[in-house]
Amino acid sequence: MAVYTEVTDEELTAFVAQYDVGAVLSAKGIAEGVENSNYLIHTEAGFFILTLYEKRVKEDDLPFFIGLMEHLAAKGLTCPQPVRMRGGGALGRLAGRPAAIVTFLDGMGVKRPGVPHCGAVGEALARLHLAGADFGMRRANALSVQGWRPLYEAARERADTVTPGLAEATARALAGLEANWPRGLPEGVIHADLFPDNVFFLGPRLSGLIDFYFACTDALAYDLAICLNAWCFEVDGSFNLTKGRAMIAGYERVRPLTPPEAEALPLLCRGAALRFMLTRLVDWLNVPPGALVKPKDPLEYYRKLRFHERATCAADYGRDA
Amino acid sequence: MAVYTEVTDEELTAFVAQYDVGAVLSAKGIAEGVENSNYLIHTEAGFFILTLYEKRVKEDDLPFFIGLMEHLAAKGLTCPQPVRMRGGGALGRLAGRPAAIVTFLDGMGVKRPGVPHCGAVGEALARLHLAGADFGMRRANALSVQGWRPLYEAARERADTVTPGLAEATARALAGLEANWPRGLPEGVIHADLFPDNVFFLGPRLSGLIDFYFACTDALAYDLAICLNAWCFEVDGSFNLTKGRAMIAGYERVRPLTPPEAEALPLLCRGAALRFMLTRLVDWLNVPPGALVKPKDPLEYYRKLRFHERATCAADYGRDA
Repeated sequence: MAVYTEVTDEELTAFVAQYDVGAVLSAKGIAEGVENSNYLIHTEAGFFILTLYEKRVKEDDLPFFIGLMEHLAAKGLTCPQPVRMRGGGALGRLAGRPAAIVTFLDGMGVKRPGVPHCGAVGEALARLHLAGADFGMRRANALSVQGWRPLYEAARERADTVTPGLAEATARALAGLEANWPRGLPEGVIHADLFPDNVFFLGPRLSGLIDFYFACTDALAYDLAICLNAWCFEVDGSFNLTKGRAMIAGYERVRPLTPPEAEALPLLCRGAALRFMLTRLVDWLNVPPGALVKPKDPLEYYRKLRFHERATCAADYGRDA
Repeated sequence: MAVYTEVTDEELTAFVAQYDVGAVLSAKGIAEGVENSNYLIHTEAGFFILTLYEKRVKEDDLPFFIGLMEHLAAKGLTCPQPVRMRGGGALGRLAGRPAAIVTFLDGMGVKRPGVPHCGAVGEALARLHLAGADFGMRRANALSVQGWRPLYEAARERADTVTPGLAEATARALAGLEANWPRGLPEGVIHADLFPDNVFFLGPRLSGLIDFYFACTDALAYDLAICLNAWCFEVDGSFNLTKGRAMIAGYERVRPLTPPEAEALPLLCRGAALRFMLTRLVDWLNVPPGALVKPKDPLEYYRKLRFHERATCAADYGRDA
């Protein structure tokens, strides 16, 4: 759950007056997105999401995120669409923070994804990759392989307080990935955080994608590796091959993997698991006393990492050989 | 901010299917109400609030709250109106908790109430009291004078850790109130928690009252005393006589105070301050480690209590003599 920046009714009224959406009638802080403060607002023109960008999002990156959502929406992808102010801009300031209003999307995150959900996510991910192909901006992935060692360094000393041997196992995994990280794979816009929270369904139908605030330019197949990690493991830590098969098949119905991408899948999955393990570990070790946000368990991704270390080919994830 | 009971999309879909509101399209946990979990839901019939009643609300009291909201709405008061299920009931179960769906109200809480807001609240409070006059159910106020000593006992030992001398000052205030608490004042339904969070405005106009989960049967003027405490002090702890005058005048435009009510006002205000100081103090001393809710400052009400101890008549609150 997000920690909210409190916005007074006067500030909000003045902010919304910059848009062509009529007067603001209601605003509720919503428990969505860990990185930013979000309000569901009702105006005379309908319902919208108001986002206040908190410290973890770099202000310089906002034009990329806003531009990307506009680009994807224009290509027919269902994602939040930034609303422009009368002056033309989509980024304002509210309560001392950069802020934007985006369209409200119906749909609900799925708490227990099934096989059909995984298939639909694979397909939507590939559509996102195709729709992003001609997006003109670039943003480096700060959380790709070159970003992992600084995280490891920040966590190393106290890593074994979380579980014995974690520091050494992480060092080994990191060194292996740094030495063998696949290069030259097809690149483009990736979502980079397409967890179940960020995919909306209406009944069985995937109805939209949200939270593009980790989106960046990176290997497309790495995005699929992130999704395999996020969607296809069971709560007991086992990999569900049927879900993996559905997700990869869904993806390839829209965008077939190239042979080097398929070959790199185990390494990419290992990297994705290490990335989420490391950011969770740093958060876990740095929870301020009295914090309002409960950190996520890094060991979930440690277990996933160990699964990937035993995988040798894309077939281990359910891809037809 | 509330701690939410997590509801899965499947549970929610099944729950909403009991109502005549179409399929559920969206559900956002909202930061409203400290006692319960609230979701703003969108269904094919529109927007609604779904409340899951948490431990602090007694299940036996729910028919009173639900019945009261229906009664007040029927009388033309703008408050959330419970939606009935196809079977006729307004109370269901969701995620192991009692749950209800009520109508969504536009409007926003005012963070910095001005004099006109205080006048409007006084008026709305009196209208609520008149509308409740013929409500058929009763609910004792568990947080009136007879409820304060158990709270004091629970907090006494550690009260001085909050501020030196607090235990003794509280004991003295409590004994004085127990000995002199006014009896025989006009009684009826009171809101008992009409803080700025619970009053919605649209621009300058008061648009609705929410959160009836402390409502009970008690002295009507005690409700006014609660509002004087909640609305008419400045952040520096001073009582704003102009706001007090506006609130009392607003109230009396709709329902004039009887002479005994006016005379009892300083004592009622003292009691109201002690009540909120005590519940906040108990919460403050019992924050579990790692709690997600930040407790409210009991000393705010200690300072208000000291103001009331120096007041001698209703004129000290701005009532025309």
